[in-house]
Amino acid sequence: MAHTVREKHKLLARVRRIRGQVEAIERALDAELGCERVMHLLASTRAAMAGLMAEVVEDHVRIHLVDPETHPGALNAEAAEQLLAVVRTYLK
Amino acid sequence: MAHTVREKHKLLARVRRIRGQVEAIERALDAELGCERVMHLLASTRAAMAGLMAEVVEDHVRIHLVDPETHPGALNAEAAEQLLAVVRTYLK
Amino acid sequence: MAHTVREKHKLLARVRRIRGQVEAIERALDAELGCERVMHLLASTRAAMAGLMAEVVEDHVRIHLVDPETHPGALNAEAAEQLLAVVRTYLK
Amino acid sequence: MAHTVREKHKLLARVRRIRGQVEAIERALDAELGCERVMHLLASTRAAMAGLMAEVVEDHVRIHLVDPETHPGALNAEAAEQLLAVVRTYLK
Repeated sequence: MAHTVREKHKLLARVRRIRGQVEAIERALDAELGCERVMHLLASTRAAMAGLMAEVVEDHVRIHLVDPETHPGALNAEAAEQLLAVVRTYLK
Repeated sequence: MAHTVREKHKLLARVRRIRGQVEAIERALDAELGCERVMHLLASTRAAMAGLMAEVVEDHVRIHLVDPETHPGALNAEAAEQLLAVVRTYLK
Repeated sequence: MAHTVREKHKLLARVRRIRGQVEAIERALDAELGCERVMHLLASTRAAMAGLMAEVVEDHVRIHLVDPETHPGALNAEAAEQLLAVVRTYLK
Repeated sequence: MAHTVREKHKLLARVRRIRGQVEAIERALDAELGCERVMHLLASTRAAMAGLMAEVVEDHVRIHLVDPETHPGALNAEAAEQLLAVVRTYLK
């Protein structure tokens, strides 16, 4: 994944936050904190994972669908944005 | 949407089938056929709509992200297929 | 579905609105209005169907999981509300 | 959560497997293994989380919606099964 260093750090920060959320689910189950608490934690972890997926898909579209070095200007930016808007809606 | 005539007919046939499914939900509610029946019809209509969305997204990626006439060969076919595989998984 | 007349009318109004949305998708495809327009219409129709499903599930939980006539007070209202909150989150 | 010891162990085993999957995503991002690999890992982690949520919701319906000690037989088992079938479909 030819990401910039900054993008990589952002994605890693996101996935580490998700790991923390999964550990919180584990602790909640272990401490028998109640279905409600566990369902709530699961729902917010799922939302965080959807956000990460949206970001990875966005990188994939911007970096890999068209190689900007060999085909500069080939990607229709408006059509890409429309696609990503749909993806984000469905990932929620 | 610069679709071929054949693609257009296929999409129209799909959306008409979905309209028939929505009409079946309407009849089921009107005839008070029971939550179970209505929930089942809703779930299969939703699956049919996801299938239509997947097809429209696929057309969008293949036809609009890169204009094949002005930028032949610019779309990375393998990367596009990976993207569509993810979209299909999430649309289910 | 032992719904009140008022509930039935509300559900029927919702499903008719959804039918209208599906007909708009059909017209958009027929008039070749563009993937973007069709994707947008599909996304909002799906949201409307999720809303209808949430309402039917809610009725199902409130009316059918426990018969309020033979088992008055048996349904834990708080636990039912927690369940429906999760269902609504996932149906979005 | 008044789960049996056996249920608790099953849920904990599931969440630990999910933690392992999230750690694999972290390693894949760190090693720059490619969007495709990351998207694939994210999709299977999401499916595992949906499975865990379905199980917690199932416990919630069976144990908390109706207290089986104070209201034995009040939960309509068939209606509960129909509800859970819908929940499982939408969680996928």
